[in-house]
Amino acid sequence: MDQAVYSVLDIVRRCNGVGDLDQLVAAEGLYRFVVDGVLVGAASSSDVQQLRKVSDSQANPPFAVDDEQRQLTFAGWCDDREKRSAAVAAVLGQLRAAGAWASLAKWRSELYMVYGGGGGGGAGGDGVAFALERAASYNFGVRTFGVHINGTTRLESGETRMWVARRSLQKQTWPGYLDQIVAGGIGNGAGVRASVAKECGEEGGIPPELAARAICAGTIQYFTRSELGLQPETQFVFDLELPRDFVPFPNDGEVDSFHLWTIDEVMDNIRRNRFKPNCAACVVDFMIRHGHLTPENEPDYLEILDNLHVKLPFPAPRFAASRDA
Amino acid sequence: MDQAVYSVLDIVRRCNGVGDLDQLVAAEGLYRFVVDGVLVGAASSSDVQQLRKVSDSQANPPFAVDDEQRQLTFAGWCDDREKRSAAVAAVLGQLRAAGAWASLAKWRSELYMVYGGGGGGGAGGDGVAFALERAASYNFGVRTFGVHINGTTRLESGETRMWVARRSLQKQTWPGYLDQIVAGGIGNGAGVRASVAKECGEEGGIPPELAARAICAGTIQYFTRSELGLQPETQFVFDLELPRDFVPFPNDGEVDSFHLWTIDEVMDNIRRNRFKPNCAACVVDFMIRHGHLTPENEPDYLEILDNLHVKLPFPAPRFAASRDA
Repeated sequence: MDQAVYSVLDIVRRCNGVGDLDQLVAAEGLYRFVVDGVLVGAASSSDVQQLRKVSDSQANPPFAVDDEQRQLTFAGWCDDREKRSAAVAAVLGQLRAAGAWASLAKWRSELYMVYGGGGGGGAGGDGVAFALERAASYNFGVRTFGVHINGTTRLESGETRMWVARRSLQKQTWPGYLDQIVAGGIGNGAGVRASVAKECGEEGGIPPELAARAICAGTIQYFTRSELGLQPETQFVFDLELPRDFVPFPNDGEVDSFHLWTIDEVMDNIRRNRFKPNCAACVVDFMIRHGHLTPENEPDYLEILDNLHVKLPFPAPRFAASRDA
Repeated sequence: MDQAVYSVLDIVRRCNGVGDLDQLVAAEGLYRFVVDGVLVGAASSSDVQQLRKVSDSQANPPFAVDDEQRQLTFAGWCDDREKRSAAVAAVLGQLRAAGAWASLAKWRSELYMVYGGGGGGGAGGDGVAFALERAASYNFGVRTFGVHINGTTRLESGETRMWVARRSLQKQTWPGYLDQIVAGGIGNGAGVRASVAKECGEEGGIPPELAARAICAGTIQYFTRSELGLQPETQFVFDLELPRDFVPFPNDGEVDSFHLWTIDEVMDNIRRNRFKPNCAACVVDFMIRHGHLTPENEPDYLEILDNLHVKLPFPAPRFAASRDA
């Protein structure tokens, strides 16, 4: 294992590594993915060519590609959520069967909502432009959403300890890396709170009455990429103070083991790059919000914060049902 | 008084109203202020013309103006912190005496540090390019820094109440508006913690041993403007839980009165636009971090967060002395 020790800024930059989308599009010849005139993602040229081939093989091709503008859109007839979602599912099914995209070998059977202009920032509507199999979200470079829960407990002395999960060595992504006690993507149109309750039960054996104590403390946002593609992501970050006698247990095989560590132990593992990058970013946000990392003890304080709160160039959806909830 | 009720997003946008600097520069014909090849601010054309006139009247003009590039820089000889600070002070003294800039009537006798490239983000050095009288910071549109302290107390029931200050009717800016219990700019090269202690004592009568309990919970960043000019600003936000029997008192005439309000009372005053805009942003950040505003009860949750965490197009300085402090 890598024995190097990194700065916290290095670590959060490993997560927020993409930088400016326009520059990336120009440098790598990406195609912008535009729906209803709104930018919702970006795809590699090779993925777009394979997508086009499958799309064009259909009686009514659902996608339109403009090579001059380097833009991917839906065909005119594919003009609402239902038609788009069905057409995308059909095309992805063919690509998967043909073994075209490596990502599709990790098919999740979980739908991510892609948000567009309608209702995304305006009044009314949930803003969903279409639904997309999670495994393909990287290929389209669409904005994704998740929940990460910092599980802590407070000793009688007042000292805070943090529960850390080691990911299963069988996980499809980042096996053996460290993670929050509980974290997961928001899929299948679920709400933020519902996703917390679901993941708490599945990943950490945290019962609903304890999960309900989790406090949403904001978000982190970053633009990351992996070998699978681009991932502009918003994570709702939760703090959950657990009773001293609570011990989490993995319920679904995604976690190898749980550890209750001091703040120093957690930060040492952060600096040694032992955390999955976006989980590291979530820990760093916790350490800042609770005053463990400060302008005095962390020279890159302001630059770290910039890398935890990136404005993403895609619509911000509304998860709330109403202003009065 | 305005009886309207606004959305929280409206309120934070009143603070973060500038948007993209490049667009503003193009739309209003601003001059970029560049030091050592690094963008550090932006100034109006009329301010630059007055500055040039005074600068050019000197034997060694300290400023250079490029009308074609619309760029303000220091003259070549004015190449270090001391020379620049002295030259700026001399020019501002003349402008003040001539009554040239309205802002200078509110001379503060407080120096703001302007950070440039050297050491701003790199290793070593404090990155200070020069020092500038606070009142003129708006004219140069340089990035400024401050501390805002959310003072709360916890009732025996566990309920949180927040101390709110009403600004003196004699304040130069935003008289009568609501404010944090304590807030102030970081001036004269002070550190973040030292600024907290100073403002706690001066503005709220909070003794050093209580001020030391304040926890830095991150920053808010916004790009605002007033009739005085542009203000790209970073506020270090602190949470300070005060004892139940503590009552703040104004020590320096800047505060009219203090009020201990419920979360609902505070949010009602936020929505009625009774807070100074950047203080409102600081309250909203508190309400998000502590789970009073949530993705469920606030439809604009994600857009609000984007407006509280703007990446500023100017160098991020280091306030820490060392990584090991």
